[in-house]
Amino acid sequence: MRFLEERIRRDGIVREGNVLKVDSFLNHQMDIELFTEMAKEWKRRFADRPVNKILTIEASGIGIAAIAAREFGVPVVFAKKSKSINLDYDNYSTQIRSFTHNRNYEVIVSKKFLGTGDHVLIIDDFLANGCALMGLLELAEKAGAAVEGIGIAIEKGFQEGGRTIREQGHRLESLAIVESMDAATGEIVFRQTDC
Amino acid sequence: MRFLEERIRRDGIVREGNVLKVDSFLNHQMDIELFTEMAKEWKRRFADRPVNKILTIEASGIGIAAIAAREFGVPVVFAKKSKSINLDYDNYSTQIRSFTHNRNYEVIVSKKFLGTGDHVLIIDDFLANGCALMGLLELAEKAGAAVEGIGIAIEKGFQEGGRTIREQGHRLESLAIVESMDAATGEIVFRQTDC
Repeated sequence: MRFLEERIRRDGIVREGNVLKVDSFLNHQMDIELFTEMAKEWKRRFADRPVNKILTIEASGIGIAAIAAREFGVPVVFAKKSKSINLDYDNYSTQIRSFTHNRNYEVIVSKKFLGTGDHVLIIDDFLANGCALMGLLELAEKAGAAVEGIGIAIEKGFQEGGRTIREQGHRLESLAIVESMDAATGEIVFRQTDC
Repeated sequence: MRFLEERIRRDGIVREGNVLKVDSFLNHQMDIELFTEMAKEWKRRFADRPVNKILTIEASGIGIAAIAAREFGVPVVFAKKSKSINLDYDNYSTQIRSFTHNRNYEVIVSKKFLGTGDHVLIIDDFLANGCALMGLLELAEKAGAAVEGIGIAIEKGFQEGGRTIREQGHRLESLAIVESMDAATGEIVFRQTDC
């Protein structure tokens, strides 16, 4: 997935505190041509998996998930950050810790849209500590849905999320894994992978 | 745009208080095939406009905007609901009233991604009172971007947003306009349009 690494090197900005800003192409402005390339790559890597639905979480996962879903020919369900107790719904819910905003979110998926018949591919833009991903896995587990795989755009390989998820036996395909970053020089080192 | 009307009739649920639930295909589960049809229709209707960017707002506009952007061959910028004062950014910002959540949001777009060279198509899932759309128009105006048109999936024609926006001279293409709904019978009446 060299093209994503190249794009990160070109347009990503490294900030103090292990912050990697990719808002010019990934999570504020969205380069849909790049997303299409990413989607085709996940389609190639998960070609053997019987995916019938893509699961993501609002907000920045939605665009990538939608373009991926177009390649897979399946619908998307996105988990919502609940702002209020919603008596109208019969939902699966879980708590997700956001370090960015220093608070917990309740995240929900309607029971109507995730169930025992589903074989989901989870898609998200970032994987760092893994909190959001753990939440999505918990929602899928509560729903009895099979998780066929996880596709991540950028994994921060120096945080624990990726290792934890892989140790649980999940097939996790991150298209770029950042091994280290240096805010002073702007240098980004990627993990060597075999594809 | 009969296929969207048919889908709303089939899968939309009318609730008391003029609530139309379309979460099975539009704003929780997303039917990407339907989105692709919608995108092609907007492409047809705005074929004469020099669109170089699609502008939307998180969260439920993002999926539709991404699929539309793939048809138009342009990037998306989505306005973000600001959770904190973000000194890191140089943003355009405005306040948007949410009746659903009974609060005001600050909504921002980075100055890096919207400017005087831009010709934007605004895309969103719903138009009712028009608050979100007014906010996006204000952001575009502050940025000096030209608004080439506005594409909405479902307009609530009995609320004032659509009329206000059209009276301002904007080219607004709503793919389904609900004229009235009846929660008791579930009946939905659509506005007759010429395409």
